[in-house]
Amino acid sequence: MKIALAQLNYHVGNFESNTAKIISHIHQAEKQGADLIVFAELCVCGYPSRDFLEFNEYIALCEEAAQKIAAECKQIACIIGLPTVNNNPEGKDLNNSAYFIEQGEVKAIVNKALLPNYDIFDEYRYFEPSTVFNCIDFKGHRIALTICEDLWNTIENPLYITRPMDMLISEKPDVMINIAASPFAYNHDEERINILKDNARRYQLPLFYVNHVGAQTELIFDGGSLVFDYSGALVDELPYFQESVAYYQLDSYSELKPLQTPTIPQKKEGDIAQIHQALILGIRDYFYKSGFKMATLGLSGGIDSAVVCALAAEALGPENVMAVLLPSRFSSDHSIKDAEDLVKNLGCKSELIPISDITDAFENTLQPQFKNLPFNIAEENIQSRSRAVVLMALCNKFGYILLNTSNKSEAAVGYGTLYGDMCGGISVIGDVYKTQVFELARYLNREREIIPINTIVKPPSAELRPNQKDTDSLPEYDILDPILTQYIEHRCSPAEIIKMGYDDHTVRRVLRLVNLAEHKRYQTPPILRVSPKAFGMGRRMPIVGKYLS
Amino acid sequence: MKIALAQLNYHVGNFESNTAKIISHIHQAEKQGADLIVFAELCVCGYPSRDFLEFNEYIALCEEAAQKIAAECKQIACIIGLPTVNNNPEGKDLNNSAYFIEQGEVKAIVNKALLPNYDIFDEYRYFEPSTVFNCIDFKGHRIALTICEDLWNTIENPLYITRPMDMLISEKPDVMINIAASPFAYNHDEERINILKDNARRYQLPLFYVNHVGAQTELIFDGGSLVFDYSGALVDELPYFQESVAYYQLDSYSELKPLQTPTIPQKKEGDIAQIHQALILGIRDYFYKSGFKMATLGLSGGIDSAVVCALAAEALGPENVMAVLLPSRFSSDHSIKDAEDLVKNLGCKSELIPISDITDAFENTLQPQFKNLPFNIAEENIQSRSRAVVLMALCNKFGYILLNTSNKSEAAVGYGTLYGDMCGGISVIGDVYKTQVFELARYLNREREIIPINTIVKPPSAELRPNQKDTDSLPEYDILDPILTQYIEHRCSPAEIIKMGYDDHTVRRVLRLVNLAEHKRYQTPPILRVSPKAFGMGRRMPIVGKYLS
Repeated sequence: MKIALAQLNYHVGNFESNTAKIISHIHQAEKQGADLIVFAELCVCGYPSRDFLEFNEYIALCEEAAQKIAAECKQIACIIGLPTVNNNPEGKDLNNSAYFIEQGEVKAIVNKALLPNYDIFDEYRYFEPSTVFNCIDFKGHRIALTICEDLWNTIENPLYITRPMDMLISEKPDVMINIAASPFAYNHDEERINILKDNARRYQLPLFYVNHVGAQTELIFDGGSLVFDYSGALVDELPYFQESVAYYQLDSYSELKPLQTPTIPQKKEGDIAQIHQALILGIRDYFYKSGFKMATLGLSGGIDSAVVCALAAEALGPENVMAVLLPSRFSSDHSIKDAEDLVKNLGCKSELIPISDITDAFENTLQPQFKNLPFNIAEENIQSRSRAVVLMALCNKFGYILLNTSNKSEAAVGYGTLYGDMCGGISVIGDVYKTQVFELARYLNREREIIPINTIVKPPSAELRPNQKDTDSLPEYDILDPILTQYIEHRCSPAEIIKMGYDDHTVRRVLRLVNLAEHKRYQTPPILRVSPKAFGMGRRMPIVGKYLS
Repeated sequence: MKIALAQLNYHVGNFESNTAKIISHIHQAEKQGADLIVFAELCVCGYPSRDFLEFNEYIALCEEAAQKIAAECKQIACIIGLPTVNNNPEGKDLNNSAYFIEQGEVKAIVNKALLPNYDIFDEYRYFEPSTVFNCIDFKGHRIALTICEDLWNTIENPLYITRPMDMLISEKPDVMINIAASPFAYNHDEERINILKDNARRYQLPLFYVNHVGAQTELIFDGGSLVFDYSGALVDELPYFQESVAYYQLDSYSELKPLQTPTIPQKKEGDIAQIHQALILGIRDYFYKSGFKMATLGLSGGIDSAVVCALAAEALGPENVMAVLLPSRFSSDHSIKDAEDLVKNLGCKSELIPISDITDAFENTLQPQFKNLPFNIAEENIQSRSRAVVLMALCNKFGYILLNTSNKSEAAVGYGTLYGDMCGGISVIGDVYKTQVFELARYLNREREIIPINTIVKPPSAELRPNQKDTDSLPEYDILDPILTQYIEHRCSPAEIIKMGYDDHTVRRVLRLVNLAEHKRYQTPPILRVSPKAFGMGRRMPIVGKYLS
């Protein structure tokens, strides 16, 4: 049997484009003589459809699309993923299903049994887990078809009490196919390879695994679909961050070969290189799928906005990036120069809009209330918020989308102004710690100087009062970031982090800042997710809670 | 046996105050000669603890608090709720548990079987459902103890495939106790009474039901704990929106009597009266639990800000409300007068801060970019955002919390300015449709004129350009609100809504506006939830999706 794997970029709720894309790949694979083409989990509607799934019409549109797709499968079989109605009156209303389509008809339906409901996943919100397990016979092969998480319980301390493949194996399948929607995190590719390899080995079966590629707002799917032989040896690893179709010949469980040169990378990309690619795809798909073209952002001369500007120029083309310099009376000369150098290096558009008349107007207007109270965070935030109002006015006038430039370290400790520098349609580096932003800057400069060296080497400052430095209020980033990582990614307690050698007072202060800043993060834009624990839908915290705060 | 029900207001993560409150009520009930005191679900940590539950230290703190509580139960038994570690290596790491404590020790542990995971609930994110069901023997009684949702599957089309009471009934209990965390929605009290009555009848057992009271950020628990006799007759209904303790004598399954005058209301409060009480509690607890005292808001002379101001004055005291009038060149004279009348009626503080110098500064500064382009939404939003910057400056200078005054109708269709009037620490009426806001205004005026009549009768306007009216861009609210309700609360399709008699073009336009405004709602403050489907954590929508948009 000749199997095609289609690793494609879908758009949530866009049935027209998803269906057209699936059908065109069916025709293409048919021309190549494939017997079966495999698409990803919930490909018909895109992933995650979230509460669109609660609309009956949405589910009906999925079925309608599936029937259109089925009608095209005359000489070829296909596997697609979609939500379907659970016909049992007891339990959730839907199943997360795979259709096996042959000769224009749905020949078999497989429902997902293990429903991820952690971090960014909410599948048990919608779907009833399957308790029925059957293989599918096709052209002399017996296929054990599973959906994503169904294979993710071979580890110690699994999240589920059942293991679908243990049930399916009793029917003696000769191949496993798994359709998935597994989003990117910088450490996730290796984890994925290990889990799937482990399955191939455990069940002594070849395994075909098809993932999504492309971004859906904050979630970035990286592709990297996989093929293993029955011994667990990696046969192929599809490219990351791009669409790809590949063909394989499977004659028996032990006879499997790729029909083109495999794309297994010689050497794994480093974390920063992966994050770079993910962010580019994230920006590009955010604009493309929402129908916008031009980005704008405030360029301070600092490293965060410089890196975001460079990423946007790469993702959208420099002609689609409007960088705005918004100096105040506290902006240093080098900040303007560094920002101008960046604009020159990138070739993007720019405007210079000094904000001092605006901040003066606010301060004069507020004089009757503020009287002679000392300059404090109120005046600092007026600057940051004035910039946001200017940037949003440009968006409203010219149809730009504002890119947020906050990094994960400052989002964590609340070192940012709500309705000021925390504004934007999408946060580009809100899941990238400051120390990683520096690495990203150096990575962007790997071939030539894009981010001005002075931007990289000068001490970080918000420049909201004279001679301000981030380290006036925060620990050095090489202390702060590891503490944050232990707390946010690894959920360690203060005592555990202190035991690792960090200062007691610093640790408790940082963790308190993180929890107190929850109300700010609640109102920030969606953040492109590149780590296993990003702020946003994957980290749900009480606001008026009291733990560690 | 003498049973005490304790309907209390907890604070998420505040182990110190929760534990002290539980222990003080144990002592009080002991003095009253009670044999058993029953507290609510997850009372030890508060509900919802959300991802605090993913921190091992948080779970350890729960167990520590439970042991402190147990040590106080010498002459009295108690039931408390807390998360506990699931000792089975397979499945989720935690259980949602009830401890039955007797003679200073945990005598029995019951784990919740049915885990709500819809709307605002995420319990399957943390907890493994129980599959073991045992009654508890205590002083000659056999108690069927369940946790909240465990009793919510007697309906047609239930969400779960098991029914815990069907298992427990085989052990022949003589009483049911259910500890709950069931948040307010204006239609939820009747649903709750019906479901529980149905349980008492079905199993022919008396039923004691204890709920939370108090707000946790957006979620408002309304109390209303219930007691039914074995025939399903309502024996008692504890007060709504306040703490309450009540005692009952249970001698056998058929002999149950209250030990004080029951508080069953003669007549159900109307929806608007309930919403009023809920919002007062929501505001009060938001401030009290976050340690803030003073609220501020922009007073436009319109009905939304007037209603929010009146609610805040009632919740916090007028001396703790700073109303700010922020007229622009488009504000009409009557707007200022109406706002001033309201301030007089309430006796709250106020400031008049005209914003025209600020908006002039923005427009002058942006002249080189805007040139002679016509006045449009860019200039409109500058006004709204300038007000937000002024209000936030006052917050930063004086320690106020800004109240958001957006209503549900405008939040739905995106008729509001992100980073402008959509700002605030908490949204007070973001789950109240505009037509309900009018009803709320009339309700607030039920004894004397608080909301100026002119504010109620004049046509709604954002006053961001000359002679603007809401109906320039939106259908009349008595058309808009029913369409929104059908879509948001009932999840009807466009075709279904049109079939109800609404104009095709209007329906499609409104639904498109709702889905296009998702990116705005993502960045708005938490919204006090009073309906079965509020924007926020209970409604999770794709941003860059394509359904109906």
